[in-house]
Amino acid sequence: MTAQHLRAPAPEGIARATAKLADFLPETPLLEIAIGGQTVWCKAECLQPVGAFKIRGAWHRLSDLTDQERARGVVGVSSGNHAQGVAWAARRLGIAATIVMPSDAPAVKLANTRALGAQVVLYDRPGGEDRDEVAARICAEQSAVLVHAFADPWIIEGQGTVGLEAARQMAQRGIGAPTRIVAPCGGGGLSAGLALALPDAEIVPVEPEGWDDMARSLAAGKILSVGKDAPPTACDALQTPATREINFAVLKDRASPGLVVTPTEVRRAQRFAFSELRLVVEPGGAAALAAALSGKVALDGRTVIVLSGGNTDPAAFARVLASDN
Amino acid sequence: MTAQHLRAPAPEGIARATAKLADFLPETPLLEIAIGGQTVWCKAECLQPVGAFKIRGAWHRLSDLTDQERARGVVGVSSGNHAQGVAWAARRLGIAATIVMPSDAPAVKLANTRALGAQVVLYDRPGGEDRDEVAARICAEQSAVLVHAFADPWIIEGQGTVGLEAARQMAQRGIGAPTRIVAPCGGGGLSAGLALALPDAEIVPVEPEGWDDMARSLAAGKILSVGKDAPPTACDALQTPATREINFAVLKDRASPGLVVTPTEVRRAQRFAFSELRLVVEPGGAAALAAALSGKVALDGRTVIVLSGGNTDPAAFARVLASDN
Repeated sequence: MTAQHLRAPAPEGIARATAKLADFLPETPLLEIAIGGQTVWCKAECLQPVGAFKIRGAWHRLSDLTDQERARGVVGVSSGNHAQGVAWAARRLGIAATIVMPSDAPAVKLANTRALGAQVVLYDRPGGEDRDEVAARICAEQSAVLVHAFADPWIIEGQGTVGLEAARQMAQRGIGAPTRIVAPCGGGGLSAGLALALPDAEIVPVEPEGWDDMARSLAAGKILSVGKDAPPTACDALQTPATREINFAVLKDRASPGLVVTPTEVRRAQRFAFSELRLVVEPGGAAALAAALSGKVALDGRTVIVLSGGNTDPAAFARVLASDN
Repeated sequence: MTAQHLRAPAPEGIARATAKLADFLPETPLLEIAIGGQTVWCKAECLQPVGAFKIRGAWHRLSDLTDQERARGVVGVSSGNHAQGVAWAARRLGIAATIVMPSDAPAVKLANTRALGAQVVLYDRPGGEDRDEVAARICAEQSAVLVHAFADPWIIEGQGTVGLEAARQMAQRGIGAPTRIVAPCGGGGLSAGLALALPDAEIVPVEPEGWDDMARSLAAGKILSVGKDAPPTACDALQTPATREINFAVLKDRASPGLVVTPTEVRRAQRFAFSELRLVVEPGGAAALAAALSGKVALDGRTVIVLSGGNTDPAAFARVLASDN
């Protein structure tokens, strides 16, 4: 950790990130759907150039690096969406990027990250290898800058632009400010950013079954990790063992109780997005929609649901479409 | 045909339709992709509320009906996307809608049209029943107003708003005016509208193999029909036997030679949209992208490709994803 990581993320940083992104990244659409007769609003972050909101935080972080830092290169750690965000931003800025990715990441995420010019280093996630140790070793060897997937003030601020953008779109359309924003939650970078961006909205983080460390941490008032026996999950993007202090410091007093969704609920949400929105949403990206469709969260006409990513292998998606549970 | 149908579609009508739609229909995104290293722009009309651009023309037509016409109800003829557009507009305006649809339309299109409150009357497309005769009979019985899927000046003007909207988005992003717009073509409603909306752009209609009546008509300088032996096609939305004079009058001097794409090229385009854009695009909706990916059309940095619709059955889409040709 360098000293600059000690600063807290702030709303001013979200505003600055929004301005930087507006130069070249068009707004993602805010799509209207009805759930049980109630209109709600889906923020389609799966339509970002890398297929996920992660491009926001990565750009905010990398574009703020000094020339000296840029010359040293960056190292990211990610199951795939942050990887692509960092690789995309690094290529655009001419920075060398190394990404530590799990060996069992979806093939499409590995391929896309490499296609964006990043060097990919695999670690053994199923075998329990510590990805942060792998990344720290590479950073030390290369004197490179670590770009953490969620425990970083720039990353949190960048992801928070999702919230500012949704609020602006709702204001333009005369809907009023968001009352509630429901978002998939892995390490809590997006949820913390949304909490800072929308101080008057309820923040509802949603995790997959067995990976509910945030829900348990919020209930306990302290950071807890998932157990060593956490089950396999299709929601690879949300497969984070524990949040970090920089995220939890924001969320502990702001987030609603965390929600948990089952694999069946996630698949149903993916099929809903397919047929009602004509969107490809990956399992982790569909977690918030799954909670909404399952009646686990209160909905009103100013509720926003984040569809956070759409990077999924064709064969896996075909199986979801063919499944009836 | 009532007398008002004799008027020609006009750019002024497109501007008026654009203003009417702007009140409640957000712009569809213009998404950047690279084909062979060349940036081009995809207009994602599959993200419209009914999953296709057809909502534009239907709204322009129905919202211009007189109170007397509204009371009599409307009749549409469609394989499914125009059906949903008419049903959606009719419900919003409180107009009774009857839609004549082929018995072999995709199940999702039949279900969606009924879910929007329209009465669906099936005709025997595989058996060669004349859908226009069925519609004319219903119109006579109910004194209802026919809303043709493409041979109608309002419909043409409404679909033309796709072009105005894309041009405005490109101007806002500093890209410059569209040089060329590549669009799936059934009866020619969209292509004719685009030609009127963008007088300085090349208009490239794309049809599926065996249903290339527009390409042959443009080559011959007169309207030709597909043969009685036209093959089955997955592009149900483009399965139109012949264009009409109101469309051809616009296109004969404006359109480039029509292009034809194969089933393999269409499936490849659907898979490209899945993995690169995270969009669900139906076969007919992917025809223009198929032409671009196959090198059949010149591309430059101001070429627009219309992804016209995304209503496809899950099982059919799963087969496309699983296919490697």
